[in-house]
Amino acid sequence: MPDLGDAETIRILVATDNHVGYNERDPIRGDDSWKSFHEVMCLARERDVDMVLLAGDLFHENKPSRKSMYQVMRSIRMNCLGDKPCELELLSDASENFQGAFNHVNYEDLDINVAIPIFSIHGNHDDPSGEGHLAALDILQVSGLLNYYGRTPESDNIQVKPVLLQKGRTKLALYGMSNVRDERLFRTFRDGKVKFYQPSVQKEDWFNLICVHQNHHAYTETGYLPENFLPEFLDLVIWGHEHECLINPKLNPETKFHVMQPGSSVATSLVPGEAVTKQVSIVSITGRDFKCEPIPLKTVRPFVMKEIVLSEEKGAQKLARKENNRTEVTRFLMTIVEELIEQAKAEWLAMQEDVEEEEELEVPLPLVRLRVEISTPEGGSYDCENPQRFSNRFVGKVANVNDVVQFYRKKKNAANRKKDDDVDATAVSQLSTLDTVKVEQLVREFLSAQSLSILPQNSFGDAVAQFIDKDDKHAMEIWKTCSLEASRRGHEGRSDSSLNQMAGTVNSTASGKTNPER
Amino acid sequence: MPDLGDAETIRILVATDNHVGYNERDPIRGDDSWKSFHEVMCLARERDVDMVLLAGDLFHENKPSRKSMYQVMRSIRMNCLGDKPCELELLSDASENFQGAFNHVNYEDLDINVAIPIFSIHGNHDDPSGEGHLAALDILQVSGLLNYYGRTPESDNIQVKPVLLQKGRTKLALYGMSNVRDERLFRTFRDGKVKFYQPSVQKEDWFNLICVHQNHHAYTETGYLPENFLPEFLDLVIWGHEHECLINPKLNPETKFHVMQPGSSVATSLVPGEAVTKQVSIVSITGRDFKCEPIPLKTVRPFVMKEIVLSEEKGAQKLARKENNRTEVTRFLMTIVEELIEQAKAEWLAMQEDVEEEEELEVPLPLVRLRVEISTPEGGSYDCENPQRFSNRFVGKVANVNDVVQFYRKKKNAANRKKDDDVDATAVSQLSTLDTVKVEQLVREFLSAQSLSILPQNSFGDAVAQFIDKDDKHAMEIWKTCSLEASRRGHEGRSDSSLNQMAGTVNSTASGKTNPER
Repeated sequence: MPDLGDAETIRILVATDNHVGYNERDPIRGDDSWKSFHEVMCLARERDVDMVLLAGDLFHENKPSRKSMYQVMRSIRMNCLGDKPCELELLSDASENFQGAFNHVNYEDLDINVAIPIFSIHGNHDDPSGEGHLAALDILQVSGLLNYYGRTPESDNIQVKPVLLQKGRTKLALYGMSNVRDERLFRTFRDGKVKFYQPSVQKEDWFNLICVHQNHHAYTETGYLPENFLPEFLDLVIWGHEHECLINPKLNPETKFHVMQPGSSVATSLVPGEAVTKQVSIVSITGRDFKCEPIPLKTVRPFVMKEIVLSEEKGAQKLARKENNRTEVTRFLMTIVEELIEQAKAEWLAMQEDVEEEEELEVPLPLVRLRVEISTPEGGSYDCENPQRFSNRFVGKVANVNDVVQFYRKKKNAANRKKDDDVDATAVSQLSTLDTVKVEQLVREFLSAQSLSILPQNSFGDAVAQFIDKDDKHAMEIWKTCSLEASRRGHEGRSDSSLNQMAGTVNSTASGKTNPER
Repeated sequence: MPDLGDAETIRILVATDNHVGYNERDPIRGDDSWKSFHEVMCLARERDVDMVLLAGDLFHENKPSRKSMYQVMRSIRMNCLGDKPCELELLSDASENFQGAFNHVNYEDLDINVAIPIFSIHGNHDDPSGEGHLAALDILQVSGLLNYYGRTPESDNIQVKPVLLQKGRTKLALYGMSNVRDERLFRTFRDGKVKFYQPSVQKEDWFNLICVHQNHHAYTETGYLPENFLPEFLDLVIWGHEHECLINPKLNPETKFHVMQPGSSVATSLVPGEAVTKQVSIVSITGRDFKCEPIPLKTVRPFVMKEIVLSEEKGAQKLARKENNRTEVTRFLMTIVEELIEQAKAEWLAMQEDVEEEEELEVPLPLVRLRVEISTPEGGSYDCENPQRFSNRFVGKVANVNDVVQFYRKKKNAANRKKDDDVDATAVSQLSTLDTVKVEQLVREFLSAQSLSILPQNSFGDAVAQFIDKDDKHAMEIWKTCSLEASRRGHEGRSDSSLNQMAGTVNSTASGKTNPER
């Protein structure tokens, strides 16, 4: 049912990282990615939204297979075309927003009846490349099926101009910043070379939404996009790239905008973040307010994950001291995997609650991952079966028949690691002694400069670096008055280390986490 | 201006072998292929035809580059969509004809305004492949831009079912047989495994047109499609694959149908066939009559070719006996190339006669090929410059700066060749002593069997082989009465050699011709 006040409300189905084509040659999982994308498209039609918003990595491969392209086009054409006129009015310059062969948003095309327009930025998987610097999204755009916006043709000089949409009295400024290599983007922000444009009139009336596709976590000091790099005038940030579904918008207390991380619609790594229920959301914007309705996806293959320390498990503790314990260890682990399979089945069935004829439901083979720490602090050893052989025991019961189990030991040089940890701790403590409030304030002052219709090419990065590195409290003022001058000067001789502190982050990979495939 | 009697006339723009993507990385010629395709699409719109018919190899690469796909989609969307309703009525089963995700011809889609539908078979360059066995044409079809018909999913069992179109009282049965490897198709025909379906009612009212994409010439005995393999009920055959433009339909006196070979819209080899003016044709069908209007393409890069025997050229005859003749030989050849460049320019300008403001015309750099036979029967030698170095002299004047000239000598073992020629002559003479009239009659009898609504799966090939190989004059009758039985029997033990004679052709490659790239 449409909301009351529908005529004033822009309803957006938000999804991202569909990764169509992921693992498409796998005999079991091959169709997972496009089937979930199809579910998203069907939801758009069934829920009759005004538009769909995708935050990158619609395709897993830069050059999608014919099958991937075919399935995506089919899903869009089946669901997003139709008689119903799109009620959004485009107020910005389409040729600038979309830079396509046709100078209009697709739903204004006289020859294609687009009922539900899709807007998408590109991600790191489906970025432009090759002859003509075209992306897979350009193919969708030229065929009239999608609006590809938020291009970043120059990674060291980024102009973010919004798509301006209006429905009733609700005005949406839709920003997009397609993926740029994280280190590069960090530098571009630091150098003040990211410009955000705002409508020149009635600035306060606009709901400002942006899609980005970058690392959200500080995997390295400069290898991510700090939320507070984004301008404060934003109301909502849709964060693509990270696959963990954090569908409920979280307020950034510093910038006062909300951040929603929808996550991927298909698991591309068997890590805890991918085991979170995959959801999309219908964001309803009325005036400058918004609310969200998360919708769990039903086609997603169930994935359960468990990590155990074998020496701490009641049923396995004593096995290490037994000779020839392989059979017993294997049996113990098999029991856990069987439990996980049951858990996956139960969770999946719970998800299908709306389906009427439950007897027809066939639970898809689940993805199961059991991580087993097998070091034996009290002596002895666990005689573990070859992981692939163990996994193969579940053929017909799981979808990932070759990597159900992962064995690992605690790092042996624990002493060295301790030392590293100490260094990290020191860094953190040093950071907290910094007057971080001032840094934050500085960032905020910078962002407030966006009340200008057009942000100047500024040397914000320089100013911040100087502020911290040289403890120059006037840097900000100087920057403010001389921003034009400063931007003309070169930026040589600035050391990255000074800025790393500003970022205020510690390399989290030191904790032994591995980056999942995103 | 539309013809009088337009309401009863189906006007078809016929083109083929656009090879979009050919040589697309060449700095000079890179855009040639899609520009000529674009011209064809513009012609469709300007001339307001009812449909476009393509006979394969729309794309040069099986997996077209993003740029190629983009340009093709752009051209089609710009020219073939529009308000004007398509006046053709589809009478056959679209799901069977097109086997796409949407069970209708594209102009009947409620959400896409197709003014000029395109129908295409696939060629040898853009055939289906890979996961899902999809062709590049499937991408165009699923996006609603084209109708891909005449599929040949099983090369040893081909069912050719027409797309039935009607406008006013004119009925068009549009057949298509997408490319199959020639040797394979020959065998499939021979085995009686190609079935042509005809409408079951008012058979005589239909104009029967087919597109094929096969070798037209007998490059080898069984490596082509003999015209008389095609059923006699056809009125017009559009022959794709061969790049030489033979735009005027030629009557086959035996089968009584006409054959039009439109040729490619871009030269992919510098051979004489590609130097023929590239044309497309508007075929107007009224009732069972048709007429053609050839239209030369204006965007095609001029290509002139000349073959000379240096020892027979007045200006070069005596040079062979001179020492250090390189400079003079080079100068002589340069003069010829310069003449060819002028000729190309003049021919191109003559082609643009309709263009109003002639002063604005900039002649594209031409393709020039000079083949030079440099043997010296009277002694001496020609000291020829390295061909690439010679060609490089025309940088800025020709498009093919590396292969303007080709030097070759007459084969030295002329005596042996003479012997070979004699063998060929013998083969030819043997063939003519065969009662070829009977073979032809037999073929005709076979084809007359197509007056059945559905041709039986027959063992025509067996019968013909037996007729010739074993001089069994009853083979045909036996085949007629036992065709069903025969088709159930296996076809083992038949030797290809017996059938080669039936084909009645001599390997024309023996004459030293090389197959151009098609």
